Amino acid sequence: MPRSETTHVDRENKEALIKRLNRIGGQVEGLTRMVAEGRYCIDILTQIAAVRAALDALGREMLHDHAHGCLKDAVRSGRGDHAIDELMRVVARLAR
Amino acid sequence: MPRSETTHVDRENKEALIKRLNRIGGQVEGLTRMVAEGRYCIDILTQIAAVRAALDALGREMLHDHAHGCLKDAVRSGRGDHAIDELMRVVARLAR
Amino acid sequence: MPRSETTHVDRENKEALIKRLNRIGGQVEGLTRMVAEGRYCIDILTQIAAVRAALDALGREMLHDHAHGCLKDAVRSGRGDHAIDELMRVVARLAR
Amino acid sequence: MPRSETTHVDRENKEALIKRLNRIGGQVEGLTRMVAEGRYCIDILTQIAAVRAALDALGREMLHDHAHGCLKDAVRSGRGDHAIDELMRVVARLAR
Repeated sequence: MPRSETTHVDRENKEALIKRLNRIGGQVEGLTRMVAEGRYCIDILTQIAAVRAALDALGREMLHDHAHGCLKDAVRSGRGDHAIDELMRVVARLAR
Repeated sequence: MPRSETTHVDRENKEALIKRLNRIGGQVEGLTRMVAEGRYCIDILTQIAAVRAALDALGREMLHDHAHGCLKDAVRSGRGDHAIDELMRVVARLAR
Repeated sequence: MPRSETTHVDRENKEALIKRLNRIGGQVEGLTRMVAEGRYCIDILTQIAAVRAALDALGREMLHDHAHGCLKDAVRSGRGDHAIDELMRVVARLAR
Repeated sequence: MPRSETTHVDRENKEALIKRLNRIGGQVEGLTRMVAEGRYCIDILTQIAAVRAALDALGREMLHDHAHGCLKDAVRSGRGDHAIDELMRVVARLAR
């Protein structure tokens, strides 16, 4: 049976990822409250930068695990070019 | 009475900002679901990039309104240096 | 006589800026040599990142001096909106 | 004989890369002239952003070729983990 494309996220600690995403969701709610309360825009922008940094850190970790998991498997089973193109596209998007 | 630092966000359409933040919150929930369902990591990473782009767009707009509002007022009332330092710091954080 | 748009760069230590740009030019020549010698691509990419970081640091400093110089003067003399739009445009380009 | 780490850049059109780097070197010289002539800082900053964009485009291409060349070879010959860590590190630097 060929390795499913979804295997990697299972291997990764799914619980931990979900916890981090819940925390990021909470940060976004915090942002909404700040706007509703008319907080100073620099404080809101600083919080936006913090949410972005949290998302970036999550993205970097998933990218790392993906490369060591799915990408390596894909190269070994002859589907490397497709997997590398996919990786490069997502790196370009995350780097923007 | 000195101009309050919170005036600008009121002038800005607060409702529209909150709607956009709610949408971003929904995107983060979508991300959490994708992880819970064990979706392919490249799809999750693509979605992370989309949330980041939405946050960046919001940040750019707030920065624009802040500069044309609070910053201009601050320069005119002699508090320009402080306001400019604040702006540069937040720009550096958002650019990271 | 209205303040010329070029005044700010004179106030800034022009010599220091030119020295830094010469050093960046030297780094680019170093890159060219690395490619000509067939050096390992990761080493070349690391050097590309270093040149980018040097350019970014230079850009951040110029932005800082510009905001505290030209921008403040522009706001005070009623040309603030134009100057702020210019600044936001260049910030967006540098952040990309 | 094990595959040398420098092979990939040879395979890549080295001449084309050197031409592009020479052009970037010329852009940096142009920047130096702009500073020497006391040009308006927004114009200088716009040019800094252009040089950065040219470097980024070069980096993206080298990254693409590296991944499809050296990285794939490394994974196939059992040195994948090291090559992937290297790639992730350089991606993080380029994304900053």
